[in-house]
Amino acid sequence: MIDLRSDTVTKPTPAMRQAIANAVVGDAVIDVDPTVDRLEKMTAELLGKEAAVFMPSGSMTNQVAIRLHCDRGSEFLCEADCHVYHYEQAAFAQLSGLVAHVVAGSGGVLHVDQLRPLIRPLNDHFVRTRLVCLENTHNRWGGRVQPHQNVVEICQWASEYGLRSHMDGARLWNAAAATGVSVEELSRPFDSVSVCFSKGLGAPVGSALAGSADFVAEARRTRKLFGGAMRQAGMIAAGAVYAIEHHRDRLVEDHLAATKLSDACRQCAPLSIRGDRVDTNIVIVEINPIWGTAEGMLAQLNQAGIDCFAIGPQSIRFVTHLDVSESQIHEACEIIKRIAG
Amino acid sequence: MIDLRSDTVTKPTPAMRQAIANAVVGDAVIDVDPTVDRLEKMTAELLGKEAAVFMPSGSMTNQVAIRLHCDRGSEFLCEADCHVYHYEQAAFAQLSGLVAHVVAGSGGVLHVDQLRPLIRPLNDHFVRTRLVCLENTHNRWGGRVQPHQNVVEICQWASEYGLRSHMDGARLWNAAAATGVSVEELSRPFDSVSVCFSKGLGAPVGSALAGSADFVAEARRTRKLFGGAMRQAGMIAAGAVYAIEHHRDRLVEDHLAATKLSDACRQCAPLSIRGDRVDTNIVIVEINPIWGTAEGMLAQLNQAGIDCFAIGPQSIRFVTHLDVSESQIHEACEIIKRIAG
Amino acid sequence: MIDLRSDTVTKPTPAMRQAIANAVVGDAVIDVDPTVDRLEKMTAELLGKEAAVFMPSGSMTNQVAIRLHCDRGSEFLCEADCHVYHYEQAAFAQLSGLVAHVVAGSGGVLHVDQLRPLIRPLNDHFVRTRLVCLENTHNRWGGRVQPHQNVVEICQWASEYGLRSHMDGARLWNAAAATGVSVEELSRPFDSVSVCFSKGLGAPVGSALAGSADFVAEARRTRKLFGGAMRQAGMIAAGAVYAIEHHRDRLVEDHLAATKLSDACRQCAPLSIRGDRVDTNIVIVEINPIWGTAEGMLAQLNQAGIDCFAIGPQSIRFVTHLDVSESQIHEACEIIKRIAG
Amino acid sequence: MIDLRSDTVTKPTPAMRQAIANAVVGDAVIDVDPTVDRLEKMTAELLGKEAAVFMPSGSMTNQVAIRLHCDRGSEFLCEADCHVYHYEQAAFAQLSGLVAHVVAGSGGVLHVDQLRPLIRPLNDHFVRTRLVCLENTHNRWGGRVQPHQNVVEICQWASEYGLRSHMDGARLWNAAAATGVSVEELSRPFDSVSVCFSKGLGAPVGSALAGSADFVAEARRTRKLFGGAMRQAGMIAAGAVYAIEHHRDRLVEDHLAATKLSDACRQCAPLSIRGDRVDTNIVIVEINPIWGTAEGMLAQLNQAGIDCFAIGPQSIRFVTHLDVSESQIHEACEIIKRIAG
Repeated sequence: MIDLRSDTVTKPTPAMRQAIANAVVGDAVIDVDPTVDRLEKMTAELLGKEAAVFMPSGSMTNQVAIRLHCDRGSEFLCEADCHVYHYEQAAFAQLSGLVAHVVAGSGGVLHVDQLRPLIRPLNDHFVRTRLVCLENTHNRWGGRVQPHQNVVEICQWASEYGLRSHMDGARLWNAAAATGVSVEELSRPFDSVSVCFSKGLGAPVGSALAGSADFVAEARRTRKLFGGAMRQAGMIAAGAVYAIEHHRDRLVEDHLAATKLSDACRQCAPLSIRGDRVDTNIVIVEINPIWGTAEGMLAQLNQAGIDCFAIGPQSIRFVTHLDVSESQIHEACEIIKRIAG
Repeated sequence: MIDLRSDTVTKPTPAMRQAIANAVVGDAVIDVDPTVDRLEKMTAELLGKEAAVFMPSGSMTNQVAIRLHCDRGSEFLCEADCHVYHYEQAAFAQLSGLVAHVVAGSGGVLHVDQLRPLIRPLNDHFVRTRLVCLENTHNRWGGRVQPHQNVVEICQWASEYGLRSHMDGARLWNAAAATGVSVEELSRPFDSVSVCFSKGLGAPVGSALAGSADFVAEARRTRKLFGGAMRQAGMIAAGAVYAIEHHRDRLVEDHLAATKLSDACRQCAPLSIRGDRVDTNIVIVEINPIWGTAEGMLAQLNQAGIDCFAIGPQSIRFVTHLDVSESQIHEACEIIKRIAG
Repeated sequence: MIDLRSDTVTKPTPAMRQAIANAVVGDAVIDVDPTVDRLEKMTAELLGKEAAVFMPSGSMTNQVAIRLHCDRGSEFLCEADCHVYHYEQAAFAQLSGLVAHVVAGSGGVLHVDQLRPLIRPLNDHFVRTRLVCLENTHNRWGGRVQPHQNVVEICQWASEYGLRSHMDGARLWNAAAATGVSVEELSRPFDSVSVCFSKGLGAPVGSALAGSADFVAEARRTRKLFGGAMRQAGMIAAGAVYAIEHHRDRLVEDHLAATKLSDACRQCAPLSIRGDRVDTNIVIVEINPIWGTAEGMLAQLNQAGIDCFAIGPQSIRFVTHLDVSESQIHEACEIIKRIAG
Repeated sequence: MIDLRSDTVTKPTPAMRQAIANAVVGDAVIDVDPTVDRLEKMTAELLGKEAAVFMPSGSMTNQVAIRLHCDRGSEFLCEADCHVYHYEQAAFAQLSGLVAHVVAGSGGVLHVDQLRPLIRPLNDHFVRTRLVCLENTHNRWGGRVQPHQNVVEICQWASEYGLRSHMDGARLWNAAAATGVSVEELSRPFDSVSVCFSKGLGAPVGSALAGSADFVAEARRTRKLFGGAMRQAGMIAAGAVYAIEHHRDRLVEDHLAATKLSDACRQCAPLSIRGDRVDTNIVIVEINPIWGTAEGMLAQLNQAGIDCFAIGPQSIRFVTHLDVSESQIHEACEIIKRIAG
């Protein structure tokens, strides 16, 4: 099967496995694990933040960040289709008692003028507005890169009004590869940034949360609360270190592959691309009901050897990654054109 | 340094590292990771439960179990010195809004007669009592093995009164090794059991929670909520599989080593053993204030080459494990006798 | 001052004060308060539900209902401008860990087709959808009466899909007075209904939550949790009983007064009525920025003897009630026309 | 029936009813209710605090105070039998995610030396210790007055260690009446104090929470969150004002009545008084199992015309109050001696 379900399905390469087997480790809970320590410092430096902390998942890094930025009785502003609101089982509410104050962007992109009127007045009827969350790249809008000008304006406004800002940068590496802007510059406007190692970068497990030293110390404490403190975590951190060092540059290949897939889709009359554009490694295809449903197309794609997800009654998502070869992409394009052309 | 701080400090052996490097993996979140799957089935079978789920830490397995057994507005009964109450940042309250209803045991051991009067009447003034938690072996009482008769009586009573029962079996492997009773038999009275792979067994990371199939399905969902769902988690699960297969039998050596340490302590007039007995691999030493404080003794032990923890103003804890050799134990005994004899 | 801030400002009439002074009371926490009991039975009967429970506020009745309908890890669907989402300090999240899944209606009115796609798939990434909340009349849309057909379709769909339904009927009495449909019929589609006695009805304090006997028993328990169990609460329940018996019929007068106010506004070029229509006793006036701001108009209205609220940068709200006389309404109309005409 | 169940059963006197009927009121949520305002200022002054806020129940005042003193991830220290831990449905955990760290006192009385070792070390394994709660008089220990020296030492120690202190003074009026020490002096050591108007004082409804102006402002906000903000609450506040002005001095009569009851009990061989002493208006009688059970005695007492509560398998509680006459106490003593003598 050509597995286009997600860039999370990548398996460690032989060289990465070797790096993992040789990792120097320690007890990261009561002491220091040198490999985890190295990963955290490397991440902090790349993102231009004082410190970073390694966690088992991006859901944990995001939800810990939201919990810390938002004190009891407060809310965060976010785009209506973002991951932290939809896909993380609302831990912000379930575990932290917080409110997501959502606003629909344009193709996943918010403008500061949409946010201005959302800050709650100081009044006992209302929660307090504390945080803005942005997602870069934006998953449900097909890997859309956030326009940097919008980001800068939003974070600057947030800062002026005493709001904190957090970036869910699960695929920030892709945004940097696509734009040529460094992850440091993309991260600069934010108080905290979460990045993932187990998506496009291809590490087996883990994400990191970066920010000020004080913030990260408190995040480390909250990681313990959530059950995310692991002992010889260097065994997996080694995969992430390897991924950062060897798999960042090749992300442009995934983007090229995604563009090929979207080009194939565009040649099929019943198909259109959500957001009309493919910025990175995600292609969301909208199916004209005249053709049939996503479920129907999924069945035919599976039959023909493509594994992918239906993410709506008329929507199919393809994600390109390390473990899909050029020839598989070529084949996938042919299959798509055969089925929907 | 002779590292007697905890059995969590053990590092993967070369053979375990090899097993990790060669692990067959998959995306455990959207699909199945074969090694994780194997570990979960192996654990369930060992514990005699329908199913098990792998998580990054024992705090997560315990706190997920408590959350599931206790619905909103309820409490669990537990021994006053147990790990889930003291050492897990009270996630049961912080994340799940639950109450720990504590009762002091005798040397960490509860009798069913102590629990009977604690069930809350059905009345709007009170929370509802839902669960009993036991810890085997009991950490803060020096690795004490729970007398099986007490356990059976408590769980039977719990079941009759509609309470669920959960065992924090972080060191259940030690209890089995010390008593010769299988982990299955030790687990049988409980609705759910948590076991740890990164303590005495020496795996780098991870714990598992076992119980009925329905319970484990819901635990898997709650693991996602807590941020504990990991992608190619087989890389670490492989360490746990190796540990189960190769490191269970040798736990008796750790127990023997602990007995040697406690014998050395007994030869020192200012020292006594908490609970008067060493059942497994933990030795908690109470220091007569005439000698001085735990802090003072810790300094001298460190100076002489022993790393360990002061766990109270007059208490020091030694834990034996895979990475402490027989000759190091011999040396540690000599150091202790020199300092406190 | 002509007080048009809210229908909550009404003061008990001499006859109501007399009823309060003479109330037969008891300890409603450990026993029964006969007047509270009478009010609860009277309310349940009026709303056609098995039982009802008296509480100190409508925020408590609503938030208790949401907490009970939504188990841990779930969400409720509601209109984007509704009271339970905006004005109750998000107790659903702060106290109960729940999510409000909002969707913008048309003038505060939802159609079932908008709700269908919102039910979350059963998947560990998502919370579970459990409840639909509607508000009748709708406060932020100028006291809009919910079209009964929409309500019936939504509740029927909810029931088919296993969702519960709750009505925030703080001003349900107004909806009934305006439409001539009984509160019983308006309540029938819902699993639970909250009504308020201290708004248009003019009682000093209190709301009630009605539903099945089991639901109300659990609500009574949750009222205790929230600190809303009061002792000789018959002293205030007596005011509510009196209000039900004497002040329901006169609500049409408030509606007539509101229509007069809206007619006066319509004669002023810079003013328009939110939602283009006044169904009941609330008039929300949108001010053309050419005239100026709500703040500016508020200052002039205050100066001229009208007390009211600015509820947005360009919006002013007038609410009519028991304590505003016909001549005051006449005067208010003249003032409005003078200022904005 | 002679009603000795609780001092909460008292009904407003004719004069109090008149005061209620004539109360000057306003909308206390969006404006000021003059009678509520008067009650709050009067209470603050009596307790020697900057401000006070009126709430519908003592559970709400206590649980709001605990929530405010304890930030996320923290705990409070309290006596093992206290009201806030046992009788308030653990709102501190359910609604606020906090932990009650309990320690058994002697007859309900704690000594500072018991508390010193309980403060949690600053470590990611532990919650943070933030608050000490004391209860004066202590309900479950028979209305025991807290020795003022203990209180002063505990609060002084708390203050030195950065802990806040809260008094559940539901029956503080009784403590003052019994000792001749003013409520102001009894309150001085504490950061916040909760007092109840609907127990010995005989008002129909309500409690107040007093403390610094900032604390009370935040408490007012939390009262809204809990659903405790009431409109023309002056109608019930008037009862509390009347109670403060007319019913404080007569509490000594309740204490005398309780002493008579306890004397009668002491004349009965099978009965003993919990705590060996009656300080105020509560008598808890322990029944020797040789006589029979509390349930059995309750049945006989009811039969003979006494209403009271069994609060344990061998314990019965009598509470004296405004609505029990001298002759009823005399009769109750005779009944007790007849049944248990």
